[in-house]
Amino acid sequence: MEIVRDPARIRDVIERLRHQSGRPIGFAPTMGALHEGHLSLIRAIREAGTVPVASIFVNPIQFGPGEDFERYPRPFEKDCERLEAAGVACVFAPASFQMYRPDHTVYVVEERITLGLCGSRRPGHFRGVATVVLKLFNLIRPDLAAFGRKDAQQARLIEKMIEDLNLEIRLLICPIVREADGLAMSSRNSYLGPEARRQALCLFEGLKRAQESYARGERRTNRIREIVIEEIGRRSLARLDYVEGVAWHDMQPVRELGPGTLVAAAVWVEQTRLIDNLWISPDGEPIL
Amino acid sequence: MEIVRDPARIRDVIERLRHQSGRPIGFAPTMGALHEGHLSLIRAIREAGTVPVASIFVNPIQFGPGEDFERYPRPFEKDCERLEAAGVACVFAPASFQMYRPDHTVYVVEERITLGLCGSRRPGHFRGVATVVLKLFNLIRPDLAAFGRKDAQQARLIEKMIEDLNLEIRLLICPIVREADGLAMSSRNSYLGPEARRQALCLFEGLKRAQESYARGERRTNRIREIVIEEIGRRSLARLDYVEGVAWHDMQPVRELGPGTLVAAAVWVEQTRLIDNLWISPDGEPIL
Repeated sequence: MEIVRDPARIRDVIERLRHQSGRPIGFAPTMGALHEGHLSLIRAIREAGTVPVASIFVNPIQFGPGEDFERYPRPFEKDCERLEAAGVACVFAPASFQMYRPDHTVYVVEERITLGLCGSRRPGHFRGVATVVLKLFNLIRPDLAAFGRKDAQQARLIEKMIEDLNLEIRLLICPIVREADGLAMSSRNSYLGPEARRQALCLFEGLKRAQESYARGERRTNRIREIVIEEIGRRSLARLDYVEGVAWHDMQPVRELGPGTLVAAAVWVEQTRLIDNLWISPDGEPIL
Repeated sequence: MEIVRDPARIRDVIERLRHQSGRPIGFAPTMGALHEGHLSLIRAIREAGTVPVASIFVNPIQFGPGEDFERYPRPFEKDCERLEAAGVACVFAPASFQMYRPDHTVYVVEERITLGLCGSRRPGHFRGVATVVLKLFNLIRPDLAAFGRKDAQQARLIEKMIEDLNLEIRLLICPIVREADGLAMSSRNSYLGPEARRQALCLFEGLKRAQESYARGERRTNRIREIVIEEIGRRSLARLDYVEGVAWHDMQPVRELGPGTLVAAAVWVEQTRLIDNLWISPDGEPIL
């Protein structure tokens, strides 16, 4: 597995991989601190018949002031071992100064999908995400890219950016991968102490109760929201950030849940912010 | 010369041109209503050894409310004849609805270079320019692109977008092409009646006097600005929009002119807004 640090060199490495393999390139951008969710993206890329390429880059411009940029985990050696074991052909891991010159001033913005949910809680976050992903796409030039549905608003943003900016990239949005007890995998789970880890399960428990209620016929967003709010309210270390029922295509609130909608929620557990969501599939099945 | 309307078809046409010719692709995006300035871009592209491709697209999102989007000239047949005569291999001319879906929400913004000069007079203009140029770049995938220095702030924006978003496109910024009397060529010159056309020369005359003053040793931006303001003030139909001395790299005001700076000016002549600029070359020579 080749590790490339220099943006000026990555294109040549990828072109060589493309020609040597005779296969298209599949790309999974990550911030490292890899878990099974990330590795499921690599598997999806391989199963699509593309050569797996990953990036590890903790993107400073998607973190707000006071967020966890500095303390975000960076177990680089271990990440590389896991990617190599997963069959990744090349890891692109630039330094911040190689991705952003001091006079960087060009950004990608999205003006509807990213306004609510995490967008309203983390100003500038999705501008940072869209910008770095476009930069990575322009450097790697993948034929296919994989993102996780855990970050639903992000996944829809990338899908919309591909459409609106005429990128020729096939997008895979992969299922949420969970711990044995149901907690959605996240690099930020490592911030949780034992009691916080136990209480963090309220997010999954709330969404699971919402799923059950939906399966019994409940469609009213407000009623479903109350179920999640109640479940989170029963934990002393947890504080609701938001829970909303939104349409997938524009991430705007809906009064009733149905195919193509999701319940998205964020919770603070002590100092750690976690997100999760419940998706209503096109055939009406609720999927956590 | 092939004329392609459908964004879904343009990539294949360009790839065929690339493989048939064995040469890289050179691209000149235009809004049509072509003049010698545009044709000089085509010549520059040919001289660089690339296959010339042009687009004709009057981009709605770079026009503000009350601007001239509706009446912008669209002599499509004549434009195509001129491009064919200039050796263009393919013209991409999509309709607006093919470039922007009703739910288009992703834009490219630049947060320094585009704040002053035309950017402060035309809110949203450069957002529209950057967005459409990136979309066209993603559809055409040129190796080289040519822009005119008459639109200096736009040219620098595109140069910056290429750098900041890691596009692999060589940029040619071509000299201003002028009418016999010195008026910078512009599609909007066609709006001018005979008397307005005569008075429009004040913009060039002001910059020419500024050039002469610089050549005699004047470096103070304020003094140079006064010269331009005075020249424009002597015409009854002309009204200064702005005149500024700025650095090329960030388009921010400078107190003294020198290599890498320019004097940029905009003037209203009756209902028509015209721009022009005087560039101080790296060796200190002022170039209109």
